[in-house]
Amino acid sequence: MEFKEQLKQYQLLINNELEKYLRKQDCPEKVLNKSMEYSLMAGGKRLRPILIIATYEIFKNDKKQCMPYAMAIEMIHNFSLIHDDLPGIDNDDFRHGKPTNHKQFNEATAILAGDGLLNQAYMVISKDLINTKAQDLKDKLKVFDEFSSAVDRMIAGEYIDTEYEGKQITNEYLEYIHKNKTGALLRLCVRTGAILAKVNETDLEKLTNYAEKIGLAFQIKDDILSEEGNEEILGKPVGNDKKLEKCTYVSKYGLQGAKEKLDEITKEAVEELEGYGDKAKFLKELALYIQNRNK
Amino acid sequence: MEFKEQLKQYQLLINNELEKYLRKQDCPEKVLNKSMEYSLMAGGKRLRPILIIATYEIFKNDKKQCMPYAMAIEMIHNFSLIHDDLPGIDNDDFRHGKPTNHKQFNEATAILAGDGLLNQAYMVISKDLINTKAQDLKDKLKVFDEFSSAVDRMIAGEYIDTEYEGKQITNEYLEYIHKNKTGALLRLCVRTGAILAKVNETDLEKLTNYAEKIGLAFQIKDDILSEEGNEEILGKPVGNDKKLEKCTYVSKYGLQGAKEKLDEITKEAVEELEGYGDKAKFLKELALYIQNRNK
Repeated sequence: MEFKEQLKQYQLLINNELEKYLRKQDCPEKVLNKSMEYSLMAGGKRLRPILIIATYEIFKNDKKQCMPYAMAIEMIHNFSLIHDDLPGIDNDDFRHGKPTNHKQFNEATAILAGDGLLNQAYMVISKDLINTKAQDLKDKLKVFDEFSSAVDRMIAGEYIDTEYEGKQITNEYLEYIHKNKTGALLRLCVRTGAILAKVNETDLEKLTNYAEKIGLAFQIKDDILSEEGNEEILGKPVGNDKKLEKCTYVSKYGLQGAKEKLDEITKEAVEELEGYGDKAKFLKELALYIQNRNK
Repeated sequence: MEFKEQLKQYQLLINNELEKYLRKQDCPEKVLNKSMEYSLMAGGKRLRPILIIATYEIFKNDKKQCMPYAMAIEMIHNFSLIHDDLPGIDNDDFRHGKPTNHKQFNEATAILAGDGLLNQAYMVISKDLINTKAQDLKDKLKVFDEFSSAVDRMIAGEYIDTEYEGKQITNEYLEYIHKNKTGALLRLCVRTGAILAKVNETDLEKLTNYAEKIGLAFQIKDDILSEEGNEEILGKPVGNDKKLEKCTYVSKYGLQGAKEKLDEITKEAVEELEGYGDKAKFLKELALYIQNRNK
C-alpha cells in the first residue's frame, strides 16, 4: 500500500476508535464532555497513536491489543495542547485552524477539559489492565509505568520551555526541552508498541533509537518550517523565532546546517529499521514524511 | 490513644512519607518541583490519606501496603486545589493562610504543577503495581481503576460547581456537585483502605456507606461554617453564600435544619461501624470531629 493511503487508513481507524470513548450522554457536565471532544476530534495528525500501532504491527497482527494505549496517548497529547494554549501559558487563539479550547468554551472549562483528558487516559489504561490476562500483565504494567514517566517528562519540558520563553538559553537547555517536551512522548509511543509486541531487548533498543532520532528530526524540521515555511500552509506566522531571538536548531547551525542535520538524522533513523525489511516500510517512510512535511 | 493525638501521629506519618516523594535535585525544572512541594507541604489536614490508612488498620497492621495510595490521594487532592484556585476558575489568593500556588509562583507554573501532581499520583501507583506480587495484583488494579474513576467524577463536580457559580441551581444539582466534587474522593479513600485490606463485600458496603455519610456531613458542616463560623479561625469571610444566593444545605433546610441533618447523618455514619468495635474507634471519632470542627 502507498504510504499516504496507509497513513489515511491509520487516521481513520484511530478516529473511529476515539469515537467510542466520547461521552455523548445528557448529564450535568455535558459541556465539559463536549469541550474534551472538541479538542480530541479537532483533526490532529494522530502521529502518536500511529507510532504505537505501526511499531506493534512490525511484529504482530492483532492490533486490538494496543488500541487502548493508542487512545490513551492521543488523550494525553490533547491534554497537553489544551493546557499549553491557555492564556496563562502560550495564550494561543487558534489550533488546527480552529479556536483553541478556551476560546471556544472558556478558561475554566479548558483547564478542566485538559485535566479530564489526562485522567481519562489513565482510566482507559486501568480498564485495560483489569481485563488483561495474567501472562500479559507484566508487559502492560511496564507500559503503564513508562506512560506516567513520559508524561512527567513532558510536563517538565513544557515548564522549561515556558520559563525560558523570550530568553536566551544554552544549547544544553534547548536539547533538554525538546528531549522532554516532545521527545519523551514519541519515544514512549514506539516503546509501547514494541513492549506490547513482546520484543527482545535488542529490538527494543533499536526501536528506541529510531524513536529518539525521529523526535529530534521532528523538532529540527519544526525550526526550519518556522524560518522558511509557507504561512498559509502552516497556519501560523513564519520568522517569529528570529524576531524573538529564540534558540533553535536554525539559530544554532544556520538554515543550511539544520537541513543537513535533518537529512543525516533521518537517514540514521531509517537505518535503525534495516533488519525488519518490508515489515517496517511504513515506519521508514514515516521518518521521510517527517523530514519532508510542509506543515 | 486520644483521638487528637492519634490524628497528629497520622499527620506526622503522612508528612514524613510525603517528604520521600519530593524532588530536591538541582535540575532545569527545579522551580516547578518547588511549586509542587509548596502546595503539597502547605499544611493540609491530610484527611484523605488518613481515611485510607485508618480504614486499612481496622483489618490489618502492616500499613506499608497502603502508603503509596495514601501518598497518591494527597497528590490528587492538591492538584485539584491548585487548579481550583487559578484565576480562570475560583481566582483565590490565599489557601491555608498562604498565597495560592499561582500567587506564590505564576499562573503557568501553577497549571503545570497541578498537572504534575495529578500525573505523579499515577507514577506512584504504577511503581507500586510493578512491585506487587501476583496474588495482590487483582485488588490493587481494582484500586487503580477506582482512583481514575473517582478523579473523573471530581473533575466533573468541579466543572458543574464552576458553571453554576452565582446562579440558582436545583437541589438535585447541589447534591450532584457535592457527591462528585468532594464525595467521590472521600468514598475512594475508604474503599481503597478496605479493598487493600481484602475485606468481604458486606464490609465494603458498610464502609462505603460510612464514607458517603461523612462526605455529606463534611459538606453540610462546610455550609454551616460559611454561615456562622469564626472568620479568623476559618481564614475566609463568612456569610458570602447568603450574599451570592448560593444554594447550600443552610439555604435549603435553614441553619437549624442543617444542624439537625448534620447530627443525624453523623450518627448514621458511626452506626455503620458498630460491628468493628474498638478497631474502628478512630474512624467513629473522625465522624464526630467532622461534625464539630470549627474550621
